[in-house]
Amino acid sequence: MKAAIHHGRSGLDGLRVGEMNMEEPGPGEIRVRLKTAGLNHRDLFIMKGRSSLDPPLILGSDGAGIIDAVGEGVDGWAVGSDVIILPTIGWNKTEEVPYVPQILGGPTNGTFAETVVIPAKNVFSKPEYLSWEEAGVLPLSALTAYRALFTRGKLQAGEHVLIPGIGGGVATYAMLMAQAVGAVVSVTSRNETKLEESRRFSVHRALSSSGNWNEDLKGEKVDVILDSIGPATFSKYLDVIKPNGRIVSFGASSGDSVEVSLRALFYPQLSWIGTSMGSREEFGDMLRFMEEHAIRPLIDRIYPLNETAEAFRRMTAGEQFGNIGLDLTFSCT
Amino acid sequence: MKAAIHHGRSGLDGLRVGEMNMEEPGPGEIRVRLKTAGLNHRDLFIMKGRSSLDPPLILGSDGAGIIDAVGEGVDGWAVGSDVIILPTIGWNKTEEVPYVPQILGGPTNGTFAETVVIPAKNVFSKPEYLSWEEAGVLPLSALTAYRALFTRGKLQAGEHVLIPGIGGGVATYAMLMAQAVGAVVSVTSRNETKLEESRRFSVHRALSSSGNWNEDLKGEKVDVILDSIGPATFSKYLDVIKPNGRIVSFGASSGDSVEVSLRALFYPQLSWIGTSMGSREEFGDMLRFMEEHAIRPLIDRIYPLNETAEAFRRMTAGEQFGNIGLDLTFSCT
Repeated sequence: MKAAIHHGRSGLDGLRVGEMNMEEPGPGEIRVRLKTAGLNHRDLFIMKGRSSLDPPLILGSDGAGIIDAVGEGVDGWAVGSDVIILPTIGWNKTEEVPYVPQILGGPTNGTFAETVVIPAKNVFSKPEYLSWEEAGVLPLSALTAYRALFTRGKLQAGEHVLIPGIGGGVATYAMLMAQAVGAVVSVTSRNETKLEESRRFSVHRALSSSGNWNEDLKGEKVDVILDSIGPATFSKYLDVIKPNGRIVSFGASSGDSVEVSLRALFYPQLSWIGTSMGSREEFGDMLRFMEEHAIRPLIDRIYPLNETAEAFRRMTAGEQFGNIGLDLTFSCT
Repeated sequence: MKAAIHHGRSGLDGLRVGEMNMEEPGPGEIRVRLKTAGLNHRDLFIMKGRSSLDPPLILGSDGAGIIDAVGEGVDGWAVGSDVIILPTIGWNKTEEVPYVPQILGGPTNGTFAETVVIPAKNVFSKPEYLSWEEAGVLPLSALTAYRALFTRGKLQAGEHVLIPGIGGGVATYAMLMAQAVGAVVSVTSRNETKLEESRRFSVHRALSSSGNWNEDLKGEKVDVILDSIGPATFSKYLDVIKPNGRIVSFGASSGDSVEVSLRALFYPQLSWIGTSMGSREEFGDMLRFMEEHAIRPLIDRIYPLNETAEAFRRMTAGEQFGNIGLDLTFSCT
């Protein structure tokens, strides 16, 4: 089968589209013939971290498709079912938090392929209201946004949430989910086009990353900040957060190390909350939440599998607003 | 009346025992004739931050005594009532978090005096099971420990809490309170005598600050760390905390600035929670909790008012195990 394979070199240079063997599902497993899959920054991070000595890996943590083979002992799933794929593996309860959650597309083979073999408990019925494109790009980033906002950030109706760096998958889901529960949403970006785009979604304020946020928020303070940027913007957070506010961190796009003043944390009673991915339970909750509020993923662009490198270049350039996906059906005959 | 007054110089050098005018309670206020008061690191921090231009200030945030005058419009309090003093001012609900909570002994005159005038809502009936010495040293540090452990840290029975730097007021209350709810308590200190002392309270492990905590905990990990130290020990916390663990910070005795790895925070789903003082509601809850569990403050030493500087020197040297207090009755005739 055709797949986007990483091998032989670190980073995006190690990516090629080639042939891999199609696997048969073992006991408790199913095989999904993929329709679509989504790109994540995590894929770039995985490619960067792999060396020339690592074995070939099929990338991809997102996906949706149709079951085409069922292993022994699998109950409740039949060939022909439309499914959406849970990206995290071995994380079954909200409380069972693995140190680094294992996910599809590193260490195990992922979804940028004609088929993927996974445990049967790692699929859910595809929500009917979503197109294949929408379902394929949803799993990892919507799960991350859901856990960050609600399980970890405890966002409430009427609270004001700031989402720095609008445009990526997690940030755009977070914007839509937070608005759905009646929160006030403001966003930031370095890119005026993205700010313009986010105004179409009726955000409260769309702030330039380099501006004076306090002035641009007209003195309003925020309850929750959803941080994926880190050191480049962290000090600005302390200017605009309310006492008792929560900074929820799930990414480090500008670097890993942040210097924090303890008194700036504890006098105003701030909480700084780490979060990453999510559990099986949260994935089910998130799908129900999305359907209940009729939230549809924002699709930036869908590429055919053989243009995977092109798709990643768009992501690297930070040009997208919404999710970038792959169409894997070209090879379905 | 006699009082410990800070004036004319920054730091402990500006402290003297002298005469101040006794005030009359205004509308809604009462005057308390103090029996005892407790010392806090906060008093040192206040003295350090004051300049030679600041007006004279009576120090002291803790205290207990007997009401000796009642202002207009005060209901429910009569002259002769035994009371314990709430240290925070203007913080009436858990949610109403002032940026820097105002407390007695800076900016307003405090409790190191024969009498103090405060709003009537800032006193509670003295718990009968406590001696005057015990009641006087309780308020600020027990309130801080209670909010840090329970309101903010959400400590549960069966969880393992690590208290670095055992010996000070907050840390020793936290040890007793955590044990009272059935948590497992481990402590650290640079001082072997304090480790020995804490073993008398049946702590799970008493670790040397400079040791290898992972080895000394025999690989056991902790759910909650109650941090008042900051940079000197912060990196060690990440070695011994469980995924999903909480670091609760209320002090910065080794410095204000900590460098944090974002990925070390968010992959293991850690929370870092700032806390400071507590509200009126929490003070009432804390007093009921202490009485229900028959927790008594650990008294390190009680000094007469005219040895206030001496008392602070003991605190600065970090020699105490439990609270240091002042006896203010010498001047009651």
